[in-house]
Amino acid sequence: MADDPGPFARSTAVHRRDGSGDAGRYDSTIVDGWDIGGNANGGYLLAIVARAMAHHLGRPDPVTVTAHYLAPGQPGDARVDVTTVRRGRRFSTARADMVADRTLLSALGTFGDLEPTGPGDVTRVDATPPGLPPPGNCEAMDDREGFPPSFMDRVDLRLHPDDAGFSRGEPSGMPRVRGWFRFPGEEPVDTVGLLCVLDAFPPTVFNAALPVAWVPTIEFTAHVRARPAPGWLRCEFTTRFVTGGFLEEDGVVWDADGRVVAQSRQLALVPRQV
Amino acid sequence: MADDPGPFARSTAVHRRDGSGDAGRYDSTIVDGWDIGGNANGGYLLAIVARAMAHHLGRPDPVTVTAHYLAPGQPGDARVDVTTVRRGRRFSTARADMVADRTLLSALGTFGDLEPTGPGDVTRVDATPPGLPPPGNCEAMDDREGFPPSFMDRVDLRLHPDDAGFSRGEPSGMPRVRGWFRFPGEEPVDTVGLLCVLDAFPPTVFNAALPVAWVPTIEFTAHVRARPAPGWLRCEFTTRFVTGGFLEEDGVVWDADGRVVAQSRQLALVPRQV
Repeated sequence: MADDPGPFARSTAVHRRDGSGDAGRYDSTIVDGWDIGGNANGGYLLAIVARAMAHHLGRPDPVTVTAHYLAPGQPGDARVDVTTVRRGRRFSTARADMVADRTLLSALGTFGDLEPTGPGDVTRVDATPPGLPPPGNCEAMDDREGFPPSFMDRVDLRLHPDDAGFSRGEPSGMPRVRGWFRFPGEEPVDTVGLLCVLDAFPPTVFNAALPVAWVPTIEFTAHVRARPAPGWLRCEFTTRFVTGGFLEEDGVVWDADGRVVAQSRQLALVPRQV
Repeated sequence: MADDPGPFARSTAVHRRDGSGDAGRYDSTIVDGWDIGGNANGGYLLAIVARAMAHHLGRPDPVTVTAHYLAPGQPGDARVDVTTVRRGRRFSTARADMVADRTLLSALGTFGDLEPTGPGDVTRVDATPPGLPPPGNCEAMDDREGFPPSFMDRVDLRLHPDDAGFSRGEPSGMPRVRGWFRFPGEEPVDTVGLLCVLDAFPPTVFNAALPVAWVPTIEFTAHVRARPAPGWLRCEFTTRFVTGGFLEEDGVVWDADGRVVAQSRQLALVPRQV
């Protein structure tokens, strides 16, 4: 391993400023270039918050973390206030707020130490990884004019060709987005990095041929099941219900060994077309 | 409407004790009889907490609420501490802890006012309600010896016959549970009641023919999409991933008008069979 942990690790670093008892205060920086149209990617912000929570609890892996997004984040300094809710034998729980000029997001998470699956584990999987052409035959989301924003230069994201037409005004008609993910330069994706993966893809609804251009996230929950093996991650995002001014988006991430490593669900607003 | 709001409403009532600024403190009672094997049902506990959050925020509907379960709840007095995180124009966000002899659960939620769907709403549904025989031809989960606990006397729950065999030692082999739900005596299910519905059914994994008898919930997230129409609710719960000592369980609830009214996902522990 090189001394430089990589751009994602550097851009999500936190520094404990002070704290006493159950409360801890961390300094962080929302780094320029992790934004989409000027607002920092939500998964990137949550990764910063999760680093602070993991450090504060002394548990490396966000087994389950929920964020409620309250205000967009712009580049600059941000504080993360973490409060322990419970220290357990196997898991510990904390809440956290990310604060810049105002509170950007509020989070609640349970952290642990995801060890390799043991021989005594009960296992059953009723799903298969999405079929994807090799990364070289998928469509890179780099910084073209229009949709792909600067965040897309920070990640290496390759969309299934069948799901990439929305950027040319040719949505597939299905609210689904499938593709590959890795960080550039082979920076490993740790379990905190998975929080970024789970919010990195274009919205499923862009493929649904609906008059929806913008779907701000209200709430996002991730479950991390395992530490990913090195290599490309295989990702699938789907939406079943666009109703009442809301939609949900469900994500699943599989690692190069074919194991499910994370799931997500988010609730987003569907602005009324009036 | 009668003066008595009904047993569920009475059993989830909260009373503001004091509060100042963003913080409020509520008294509540974990009522005897809402338990499964002595521990109060998790959705029932969350409904109490959501009543306090809704009152504190002045918003009736839990649009999205997450609970991390920290300790089992026994009948008796419990306090709910609510703190406002953000008051918005359309939504407001709070966190809350339910405390008895120790903290039982910690929650984070965004509340609003779910109005009827407007004509300008974009709508698309890629799912259908589960096919169920009429309630009279389904299997009632009442208080027989063995699994069905006293909680099951507080709700009127009818399982699809194909999904009810686990209680006779004949699991279907599929990690799925479908059925009808209503409160006895035609007590209406409000949006807080949906939190109870979403955690009322037997675990999907009981049908999976796996050596798993007990799956404590770590985290539970509900999205409420609409206020349900009066009448039976049609419910479906499924699990795709039993891996690494965890499983997720996804729920969808449809009302008598055929509209999706709520979704849930929970992360539960799968105790190792060693």
